[in-house]
Amino acid sequence: MGNRYNPAALWLPTPDSMPSFAIPYPDRAIEAALRRKIDGKTKPPGALGRLEALALQAGLVQQRLDPALENPQMLIFAGDHGAAKAGVSAYPQEVTWQMVENFLAGGAAINVFCRRNGIGMTVVDAGVAHDFGEGREGLIDLKIAPGTASYLEGPAMTAAQCAQAIEQGAGIVLGLAAAGCNVVGFGEMGIGNTASASLITHCLTGVPLADCIGRGTGLDDAGLARKRDLLARALARYRAAGGDDEPVRVLAQFGGFEIATMVGAMLAAAEARMLLLIDGFIAGAAALVAARQAPALTEYCVFCHRSAESGHGAQLRALGAEPLLDLGLRLGEGTGAALAYPLLGAAVAFLDEMASFASAGVSDKA
Amino acid sequence: MGNRYNPAALWLPTPDSMPSFAIPYPDRAIEAALRRKIDGKTKPPGALGRLEALALQAGLVQQRLDPALENPQMLIFAGDHGAAKAGVSAYPQEVTWQMVENFLAGGAAINVFCRRNGIGMTVVDAGVAHDFGEGREGLIDLKIAPGTASYLEGPAMTAAQCAQAIEQGAGIVLGLAAAGCNVVGFGEMGIGNTASASLITHCLTGVPLADCIGRGTGLDDAGLARKRDLLARALARYRAAGGDDEPVRVLAQFGGFEIATMVGAMLAAAEARMLLLIDGFIAGAAALVAARQAPALTEYCVFCHRSAESGHGAQLRALGAEPLLDLGLRLGEGTGAALAYPLLGAAVAFLDEMASFASAGVSDKA
Repeated sequence: MGNRYNPAALWLPTPDSMPSFAIPYPDRAIEAALRRKIDGKTKPPGALGRLEALALQAGLVQQRLDPALENPQMLIFAGDHGAAKAGVSAYPQEVTWQMVENFLAGGAAINVFCRRNGIGMTVVDAGVAHDFGEGREGLIDLKIAPGTASYLEGPAMTAAQCAQAIEQGAGIVLGLAAAGCNVVGFGEMGIGNTASASLITHCLTGVPLADCIGRGTGLDDAGLARKRDLLARALARYRAAGGDDEPVRVLAQFGGFEIATMVGAMLAAAEARMLLLIDGFIAGAAALVAARQAPALTEYCVFCHRSAESGHGAQLRALGAEPLLDLGLRLGEGTGAALAYPLLGAAVAFLDEMASFASAGVSDKA
Repeated sequence: MGNRYNPAALWLPTPDSMPSFAIPYPDRAIEAALRRKIDGKTKPPGALGRLEALALQAGLVQQRLDPALENPQMLIFAGDHGAAKAGVSAYPQEVTWQMVENFLAGGAAINVFCRRNGIGMTVVDAGVAHDFGEGREGLIDLKIAPGTASYLEGPAMTAAQCAQAIEQGAGIVLGLAAAGCNVVGFGEMGIGNTASASLITHCLTGVPLADCIGRGTGLDDAGLARKRDLLARALARYRAAGGDDEPVRVLAQFGGFEIATMVGAMLAAAEARMLLLIDGFIAGAAALVAARQAPALTEYCVFCHRSAESGHGAQLRALGAEPLLDLGLRLGEGTGAALAYPLLGAAVAFLDEMASFASAGVSDKA
């Protein structure tokens, strides 16, 4: 495909043009008091395992000895991919908008899990190739374009589009924060978006591209081979044009609009001192981009589910993350984040509600 | 300690003397229809991973295409161990009754997690060395004796006590079933009971005893060495007296009352076609004994959390089980079961509430 490439289409943004975010590392001054509170609970030290680490994280993020989860919200970022038509997915592109309609009707897995676990849910149309009509309840219309351009031929989006997506994502989260939300889940829908996530993961981690590519929602062996071949050509095109590994440039190059919008939302959520529930492989790619912009971002992130996608391991190593769940999910939508949320809730609750050795009159270790 | 052993104290029950349970394998006739229902949901086949297996299991156990979880209950079986005074635990024996009081006051981790996840909770005094007084709310008094005898010197309990414990455990579950409960969690409290579980696990799996012994709630290296030495001597005493690996004999020999009562409760729960939430290492030892009595029992079990205790892996291999969670918990009380319950709830909910490709108008795989 090299002969179809137009060097003039390679976007080289300057950092000045991008929205900026101030994300500090949480102040550790409160850590000792938090650890004392955790260790004073009626249990052997460390006996609640990862829930103790979650409780500590929540306390550090909120800078409180009694952190609380308020008005939890799931955001599902949807977008279409120009490259999807070339065959990087087992499903046709129209499944993106059909699934958005399914979300709005309440019938998808993420609806069920959010309802069951008390999480509000909103779909963000960041760039679906479909007109959903005016005033749809539960849908935020921030469509940048009806699908990205195909990265098989040039950049998926322009610098202006990428900056717009990041700003729009941030805006949504500022709205949630104003409504009292302090914990937000990140999910997505976009046929073809595991391919974008694979390209981003390769560029930002240096792990060989083939090791970053998986079966998505269900490619067979032939489909996987085709996906690998297409993505290798997309990468070769980008490299031949001088494309480097600058995170936002990589993001704009390979898309999609839903990932770029998610990047902005993540950065704004960390800036607002929220807890971020990071779902799986696609949300992980967005977190990778966001964490390169602001390394302290990971302090605010709870990594929720270990994806079956082979590239997820590369992301997790780069982010120093260990997900809470490993249930063999490969659906996206934010399902892993919604399923992990009760664990975060349990962690905050034990910190708040459990008795201490002193208050309960229980003997400590002999 | 061999010189202190009295061979006449070795109990050799006949199988006829034990309560019996009729636990069939679930009828698989409904399986194909359940799989069709699961595969028809708006997701790629298998994309909900282990939740799909849980939904199938719930349908098989309840023999319904629309299984439902009714009146979920957590039972916490408490008992003391004669061997505890010899130093098999990091905590003094009185922590057992103090923690029972903590459960009754609502201040323990399991209280927090049950409240948060909508699970009822009852403590069963199967043999705590303490008088809790009459009519304590939330406590079932089925105390067989104030602690077992020390298996360092002879059997922990008599044949009659073991049979009584199993029958009493079954009785509790029949009561829950009458109250409309169809899912029951199994937790425990008993200083020294990881030692009993280690001995049971060794005898029933054949895995070397040393590999079945861990730090319990927090032994240091010296404490672990002492625990290993004590248990090796207890086992040698039993073997020297002709003790074999018959499950109920092993159970009576090494205790405790809380484990024996749990065995009866598990058998009755499976017989009543309930779903059983199996917590960690102690509940796993009870499940091991129960499954040897009735191999179909595991079909009704959801294994909830991978314990840090080294013997848990041996149990899981013997039971063919893979726990849902691995959060580094080592508390017991049923905490792993309470934390895993929302996943079972989510599995049943997606089967009931998710739209199908047909009903939602979503295109299936290309």
